[in-house]
Amino acid sequence: MLAIQEHNDLELQVLIGTASVVDRYGDISSQLEKDGFCVNAKFYNLVEGENPLTMAKTAGLALIEASTAFDNLSPDIVLVIGDRYDVLPIAVSAIYMNILLAHTMGGEVTGTIDESIRHSITKLAHIHFPANQDSFDRIVRLGENPDCVYNVGCPRNDLIKAEVASPDSLLIVQDYFSKNVGVGPVQDLSNKFFVVSQHPVTTDYGNNDLYMTNILEALSSFELPTILLWPNSDAGSDEISRAVRKYRELYSPSWLQVFKDLPVQIYIHLLNATACLIGNSSSGIREGSLLGSPVVNIGSRQNTRLCSSNVITTSNDPNDIKNAISYQLTHGKYTSDSIYGDGTAGVQIANILSKVSVNLQKTITY
Amino acid sequence: MLAIQEHNDLELQVLIGTASVVDRYGDISSQLEKDGFCVNAKFYNLVEGENPLTMAKTAGLALIEASTAFDNLSPDIVLVIGDRYDVLPIAVSAIYMNILLAHTMGGEVTGTIDESIRHSITKLAHIHFPANQDSFDRIVRLGENPDCVYNVGCPRNDLIKAEVASPDSLLIVQDYFSKNVGVGPVQDLSNKFFVVSQHPVTTDYGNNDLYMTNILEALSSFELPTILLWPNSDAGSDEISRAVRKYRELYSPSWLQVFKDLPVQIYIHLLNATACLIGNSSSGIREGSLLGSPVVNIGSRQNTRLCSSNVITTSNDPNDIKNAISYQLTHGKYTSDSIYGDGTAGVQIANILSKVSVNLQKTITY
Amino acid sequence: MLAIQEHNDLELQVLIGTASVVDRYGDISSQLEKDGFCVNAKFYNLVEGENPLTMAKTAGLALIEASTAFDNLSPDIVLVIGDRYDVLPIAVSAIYMNILLAHTMGGEVTGTIDESIRHSITKLAHIHFPANQDSFDRIVRLGENPDCVYNVGCPRNDLIKAEVASPDSLLIVQDYFSKNVGVGPVQDLSNKFFVVSQHPVTTDYGNNDLYMTNILEALSSFELPTILLWPNSDAGSDEISRAVRKYRELYSPSWLQVFKDLPVQIYIHLLNATACLIGNSSSGIREGSLLGSPVVNIGSRQNTRLCSSNVITTSNDPNDIKNAISYQLTHGKYTSDSIYGDGTAGVQIANILSKVSVNLQKTITY
Amino acid sequence: MLAIQEHNDLELQVLIGTASVVDRYGDISSQLEKDGFCVNAKFYNLVEGENPLTMAKTAGLALIEASTAFDNLSPDIVLVIGDRYDVLPIAVSAIYMNILLAHTMGGEVTGTIDESIRHSITKLAHIHFPANQDSFDRIVRLGENPDCVYNVGCPRNDLIKAEVASPDSLLIVQDYFSKNVGVGPVQDLSNKFFVVSQHPVTTDYGNNDLYMTNILEALSSFELPTILLWPNSDAGSDEISRAVRKYRELYSPSWLQVFKDLPVQIYIHLLNATACLIGNSSSGIREGSLLGSPVVNIGSRQNTRLCSSNVITTSNDPNDIKNAISYQLTHGKYTSDSIYGDGTAGVQIANILSKVSVNLQKTITY
Repeated sequence: MLAIQEHNDLELQVLIGTASVVDRYGDISSQLEKDGFCVNAKFYNLVEGENPLTMAKTAGLALIEASTAFDNLSPDIVLVIGDRYDVLPIAVSAIYMNILLAHTMGGEVTGTIDESIRHSITKLAHIHFPANQDSFDRIVRLGENPDCVYNVGCPRNDLIKAEVASPDSLLIVQDYFSKNVGVGPVQDLSNKFFVVSQHPVTTDYGNNDLYMTNILEALSSFELPTILLWPNSDAGSDEISRAVRKYRELYSPSWLQVFKDLPVQIYIHLLNATACLIGNSSSGIREGSLLGSPVVNIGSRQNTRLCSSNVITTSNDPNDIKNAISYQLTHGKYTSDSIYGDGTAGVQIANILSKVSVNLQKTITY
Repeated sequence: MLAIQEHNDLELQVLIGTASVVDRYGDISSQLEKDGFCVNAKFYNLVEGENPLTMAKTAGLALIEASTAFDNLSPDIVLVIGDRYDVLPIAVSAIYMNILLAHTMGGEVTGTIDESIRHSITKLAHIHFPANQDSFDRIVRLGENPDCVYNVGCPRNDLIKAEVASPDSLLIVQDYFSKNVGVGPVQDLSNKFFVVSQHPVTTDYGNNDLYMTNILEALSSFELPTILLWPNSDAGSDEISRAVRKYRELYSPSWLQVFKDLPVQIYIHLLNATACLIGNSSSGIREGSLLGSPVVNIGSRQNTRLCSSNVITTSNDPNDIKNAISYQLTHGKYTSDSIYGDGTAGVQIANILSKVSVNLQKTITY
Repeated sequence: MLAIQEHNDLELQVLIGTASVVDRYGDISSQLEKDGFCVNAKFYNLVEGENPLTMAKTAGLALIEASTAFDNLSPDIVLVIGDRYDVLPIAVSAIYMNILLAHTMGGEVTGTIDESIRHSITKLAHIHFPANQDSFDRIVRLGENPDCVYNVGCPRNDLIKAEVASPDSLLIVQDYFSKNVGVGPVQDLSNKFFVVSQHPVTTDYGNNDLYMTNILEALSSFELPTILLWPNSDAGSDEISRAVRKYRELYSPSWLQVFKDLPVQIYIHLLNATACLIGNSSSGIREGSLLGSPVVNIGSRQNTRLCSSNVITTSNDPNDIKNAISYQLTHGKYTSDSIYGDGTAGVQIANILSKVSVNLQKTITY
Repeated sequence: MLAIQEHNDLELQVLIGTASVVDRYGDISSQLEKDGFCVNAKFYNLVEGENPLTMAKTAGLALIEASTAFDNLSPDIVLVIGDRYDVLPIAVSAIYMNILLAHTMGGEVTGTIDESIRHSITKLAHIHFPANQDSFDRIVRLGENPDCVYNVGCPRNDLIKAEVASPDSLLIVQDYFSKNVGVGPVQDLSNKFFVVSQHPVTTDYGNNDLYMTNILEALSSFELPTILLWPNSDAGSDEISRAVRKYRELYSPSWLQVFKDLPVQIYIHLLNATACLIGNSSSGIREGSLLGSPVVNIGSRQNTRLCSSNVITTSNDPNDIKNAISYQLTHGKYTSDSIYGDGTAGVQIANILSKVSVNLQKTITY
């Protein structure tokens, strides 16, 4: 967004909705304004219920709301990110309205419903910005015109590169946590500590509380300071929250502090400093590779997403999780690996978009 | 639907919406009941306006309505057909709700927005029923598991096979038209006559009236009896209707009779008996190949869809169209070609669905 | 709208939707622009089907779309008109969003669902502009604060007053009809002619075709030139259209010319010159009273709406209708009556809105 | 519901949605099943955001979803309750679909947007079940046919009558609270204790956190055990929650225990035993009158709703609140007053509905 905003030949328009505008999941509107961005359209479409049915309702409302926004804003290009369930309807809205569609982070292979959504968006998009060479190759194999596919690396690494340059990583984190206490006892982050980020596996709706409970059980044998982040708003989110609440009520763990949401800058420093990131978030695989953070990746959610050596993938079994954590504790930090780009994705994307000349009518290449 | 209904191990549930339930486009509810089917859920979601914006609105409402229907009906498998703009939201609704998705007629290559929608649905679907070998191969190249792809031929050919067996093709047509007169002078169909079926090219919104006018201009030099069918409900539909109305007002053509909609049985006999089908409907390419009907396929809508020798593709230029029609008039009927199947698709699909065992979690094969 | 636009202390914002933006019912966008108005928000929410179910769907979508528009436009006051099924959701949206609601033409008594909708909107509105003293009194009896109720007359009479001043009434009409022919044989309007405007009675869904057929039967005994206007988009609209189409196919009446829609200026001149207006439109009662037009008002739709002596109300029986028409033919034009205002409503409304100071929190007065 | 279910000539169908199906506000589905009811239709329509815009969105989605449910269930009568923002769209859906509408608790006078919604529903409804004579009179003054208005008392009093008959009021409460601890220190309810139930005033959006903070400040001078209930889902709900969270973080009050939701049976016993109910909930006025519970009613939300002597109404000022609480503490329990009915409302409603014969076409009586 920064690179687009600063580009002379581009005008940035920002559209936000679903969980991004809801207080409960951390409304990003004010953060965007603080960062110097103007929100051109903001819509509320998150239908409460956090189950597969409301995922569909939320997507339907996104389609209805986004089409009004596109009609008002008349963008030349719509740029969508990744593979969330609320991104596909935005993509559908754009192409139905004859607007060029650009897509970042396509071509990766993971688990959950995201896997289907990601490739489905690729087949709608006109311009592709995969985050690594493996994804570039896959998008071309999916029949997309290679002239419209650009391996620019992962845009998140742009931010990491900038943040990591800051010498006072842990100090910044400590300062933030001295002012924001979340729920549960305040943890000492000056020595070894864990970060937990576990999201629902929507295709496994009904088991997400068990998966979360297994992680907490594995962690209980270490009793190291742990920062746990709230799950995203996918179906199953409530199962995870319930498991955490129940565990806290039953065991009052002295080592567990829970946060609804963290500013991305803080999260990066946390990821950089943690002894181990545990869960199924993609951040350990993507940002973690550049940072060299030890990661225990659990279950099927990330599937075969391209990983560097910093990641150990385990089953949902508490013992497997425990063993993997022990290994990472012993190993410590890894060497930085730029398989997900070198931190220049934003500038590359902006340059390409400013010159792009693509036919609205797509055709498969084979 | 017939094959599924008659299968011992399957239960058929029928869901209809969008144009299928609207009188203006020919409400199919009563036809379904006459044919012995029960409609399990019927929803109204067609937002008037017939432009790119309302296509998106209609799709959004389809998502909202279909998810309620799926919640009520709890199907094990959702089977969607083809590549229309209102089919993609049904597919999205199914996979978000963790229901197995089966898809017919995937893998083909055409023009318009349908091209993107078709491949996008393929990347969401768990089970694929392409209509020919070419499409089978393409779906596999798209990274779908070959064990889940079945070349069963085109289901529409099942009906053609049955109908064509009837010896009184033209008599049935004449009887129908003696009772249904549409708009404009009644045409004599006992000798050479034309059929026109031209749909909007949504990615070319704004030019669809010109395309239609060109066709009428080309036809005016023949003055042969012509049956023209109303376009479908895509964005641009109004442009086509307007062009037809204007032409009729200006020239009162004695050779032109217009129908909103024809029962599929009548249409097949018409296609079987016509001297030439003109327009951009897929029916000339698909059903036409089995029937050997001469076809002039106009413009980009069908793109490179697999064709038999009965099809001549031309530009939107009135002279090109005229020359192609002349050629087909001279050539006459072609030999039947079963590239789109031999008329057993329904039974094959029902058998496969009755035994299918597929993982809800999809992964790309490469 | 004109008076608001010209007022120094007010800024006009125009929001259009439902049938007003749909080509089939006469899209008014271009007319508004020709008249010097800017459309600030335009939304498509008319769900096809024209039955009670789609009336509800259309209203639901109106609520969703209007709230986005209000959020974007931030109006201080929302002014809604009358009692249509798509006006109530706009009123609901405004009051839920803490915006002052003003309402014209409240307090009247009629039939159909409009009767309930009108009074329901009154109980939501903060400022009331009834069109006559009878309605003023009723609104106050409904517990509204008399300080917020203003008998300004009917805004439609403003236009009538201006138009009627023009000396060439019939010439203007003839000129228009020389260029717009509608459907059916062109009628001679230089002598006695009829106008028919019949809308669906939604609470009597299923009988609207019969009511229309009765009218046509009654008219057939006069064989005077007749201009018939298409019904509005309420549930039952399709029943009426079908009845007209069927009658035209069966009898090819030489005296019947049908128009989808007429510019309001033309309609006024037509109403001014007609020997009799037949149907259940409110225009005969309202505008007709100022013009002195003979009116045969049929059935329950207008119920006990305040009428001047120019109106005869009859049942739906073809004989009753025929007798009433005969009476009006003999009687001829009536004296002008200003029970619905003297043509200054717009200026009065603008002045009041510019000074209004009303508490957002309503309370019933008794 | 119980009385309808048990009536021989009636069939009960239950429709739930909005906050009633959402875990966060206490999903009532399972409670309904435990109580022996079957849920015939359940829909998710609560759009997150808890602001005036999402109130409108939620209502729009309710209209869309309810119409599908009514189409599936084909009820003869729709019975709606009270005056919530999500009840009006249900009423609109019913009358647009030509279904008889019955309404309980109409005719009362209160503050907030509920005041407008309540009377607006009255003008849509065909059958009225006000909870007291004052409301009966007001509904008739609103122009409703007196033959369709029945003063049956408040249905909630039916439950109170049954529960109060139980001798072990406080024991039941204590047992419940021994198993459900909510948030904050467990309170001793065997002696004097307070209950706080404060909901957002939607027309005062932006001030709801201040109102809540004032109450907590007033309570801090008593330091008596206090049970605080979470607000409903109206716009402003988040403001109240935030005020409570902030107060707890700042002062860690030893006397404050917070519950998301309580079963209605428990709430009744709590209301019966409390030294004072504080806030703006209608329950103190309605159920409180029969129970004789001391109530401090704060601010404009209940406006001039009919009250018995057990209620003292104060401003939002902390000192006023404090003084009123002191008075009620000294006064103690009041004599039971049946101005809101004697506990037979359910049976009366069921009997009336079983015999009702009302015209779908409403007309105002004056």
